[in-house]
Amino acid sequence: MTKLSFEFISNTLETILKRVGFSDERAQQCARLFIEASRDGVHSHGLNRFSRFIQSIELGVVKVDAKPEFVASFGALERWDGCSGPGNLNAYASMERAIALAKTHGIGCVALRNTNHWMRAGNYGWQAADAGLIGICWTNTLPNLPPWGGTKATLGNNPLVLAVPRANGEHVVLDMAMSQFSFGALENYRRSNEQLPVIGGFDRDGELTRDPVRIEQSGRALPIGYWKGSGLSLLLDMIAALLADGEATYQITPDIVRETRLSQVFIAFAATAQNRDEILNGILSFMKSAAGDSTVRYPGERTIETRRRSIDEGITVDEAIWQDIEALARR
Amino acid sequence: MTKLSFEFISNTLETILKRVGFSDERAQQCARLFIEASRDGVHSHGLNRFSRFIQSIELGVVKVDAKPEFVASFGALERWDGCSGPGNLNAYASMERAIALAKTHGIGCVALRNTNHWMRAGNYGWQAADAGLIGICWTNTLPNLPPWGGTKATLGNNPLVLAVPRANGEHVVLDMAMSQFSFGALENYRRSNEQLPVIGGFDRDGELTRDPVRIEQSGRALPIGYWKGSGLSLLLDMIAALLADGEATYQITPDIVRETRLSQVFIAFAATAQNRDEILNGILSFMKSAAGDSTVRYPGERTIETRRRSIDEGITVDEAIWQDIEALARR
Repeated sequence: MTKLSFEFISNTLETILKRVGFSDERAQQCARLFIEASRDGVHSHGLNRFSRFIQSIELGVVKVDAKPEFVASFGALERWDGCSGPGNLNAYASMERAIALAKTHGIGCVALRNTNHWMRAGNYGWQAADAGLIGICWTNTLPNLPPWGGTKATLGNNPLVLAVPRANGEHVVLDMAMSQFSFGALENYRRSNEQLPVIGGFDRDGELTRDPVRIEQSGRALPIGYWKGSGLSLLLDMIAALLADGEATYQITPDIVRETRLSQVFIAFAATAQNRDEILNGILSFMKSAAGDSTVRYPGERTIETRRRSIDEGITVDEAIWQDIEALARR
Repeated sequence: MTKLSFEFISNTLETILKRVGFSDERAQQCARLFIEASRDGVHSHGLNRFSRFIQSIELGVVKVDAKPEFVASFGALERWDGCSGPGNLNAYASMERAIALAKTHGIGCVALRNTNHWMRAGNYGWQAADAGLIGICWTNTLPNLPPWGGTKATLGNNPLVLAVPRANGEHVVLDMAMSQFSFGALENYRRSNEQLPVIGGFDRDGELTRDPVRIEQSGRALPIGYWKGSGLSLLLDMIAALLADGEATYQITPDIVRETRLSQVFIAFAATAQNRDEILNGILSFMKSAAGDSTVRYPGERTIETRRRSIDEGITVDEAIWQDIEALARR
């Protein structure tokens, strides 16, 4: 692990992005979204993904110049086409548009089709909360999660984000996939030779297990809450495909580098109670009063701690990953 | 167990409701919402709750005449006050209003404060889907679920509903609380002397267990997906309280009969793809192709089967529960 400054990383990423065709402004924004994920400790969807993102561009899956195009307006709800553009820029633009709609209509919704992987889901929740709005968004994914009762991955893990703003910037942001553990997380546990803290999937014999290796072998990760997360994943896919008039999980190429034509939903709410922070502080302090075995934390609490450390000490980056990125910059 | 016709049950319930002060029309609608839950197999939130509902009226918790009052409009989002009226009638009226807003604005949202238990959450999802709209709604509850890492119940189980319409009326409707099992479900497993099918909570020593008795003793039910459901429950409570400018879980009396002043959110979406049923059938048939250990079902599939059986053979009602209801009718 090495520690690098935001500016240093951004310069390197922007150099690469401009070389593959990004404008100055879009290169800066795209780099920022990658770096903010790593800065906040979400390494799995930050710089770790950058080389694969460049590969997707080179394969023609991600079109660097493409911007979302307006399809239809229904008032406070709009449908847009991502035109195969960079997933993080498309998602950012869509949440910006949902925020603008919410400022006019109290609530605003953008349904986006034909987009690419948005990388860190939570970014677009932080974006809404930084603008002072409540945000909800989700995406479908390639098939990577077996439904409850099934052995084949015919659902996506369809990450869902809910975000609530606080005046001090310490927003409450939940960013959760519908699988109990991502395959990235399973890999980390395997590498450190650890069992999962809770049951995370099935082995090849259909038995529930905490062994990451057995789950990787079977490919049968577990939906959160068993039948409940399986149902939630299904409904999120349906609603995204229907609102966006876009592709559903079953139509998405099951190849991590060629995953494309995703459907996403962005909702913003502009009308909150006057005493917003008082309500939220009341909720948080009551929740934390339950502390027992361990500290009770709210979603986003660790993010703020990690972010502060990154700003003070530099952003933690895996050395091998940084070498790959530097190799791209030197090409 | 006995089997009774919809009309017969409705006559009995309406008699009781009118005697405690309901108008003819509201008695009929209130009875219908209770009976539809039992008809669809959701016994825990149908006729089983009726006597307790009457008790809440007699305690002054539920005000039979009160209707939702308009508080504020932000365009496609409105805030209403439930004025302590019957929770099911308030919720039904709120989803009707969200549907009307969605027909004007593409999306519509009603945030309702100061309401009572809405009984079966799924009712309001079926309502949106029967109107041809996508519906999402949720409620907060009294504190009944310990957050991840905590021993005391400082979160609600905050049921969440997502509903998608199909032309044939076989809608996909997910109705899920944030706890893996309700306390009602734990009781059922205990009575039949069975272990839970999966881990459902903690024992008094803080160990995860499938034993319903040990979970009832500790009061520590498990959020779905451990830390994930804990976070989701928190965010649903926050968003409901903020949008409705209403009470949060920590402010709600922790007594099942006196639980009141709930906050709820109802969202409807009127703009779906033209080929809606084709998209949904594609998603469902792909999901079901994963069938392995057991049949893969979608949320709402069993509901339709149970509903058909109830319509053909009568609605299954527990005899002891029916005797209690008849005693109320004879008073």
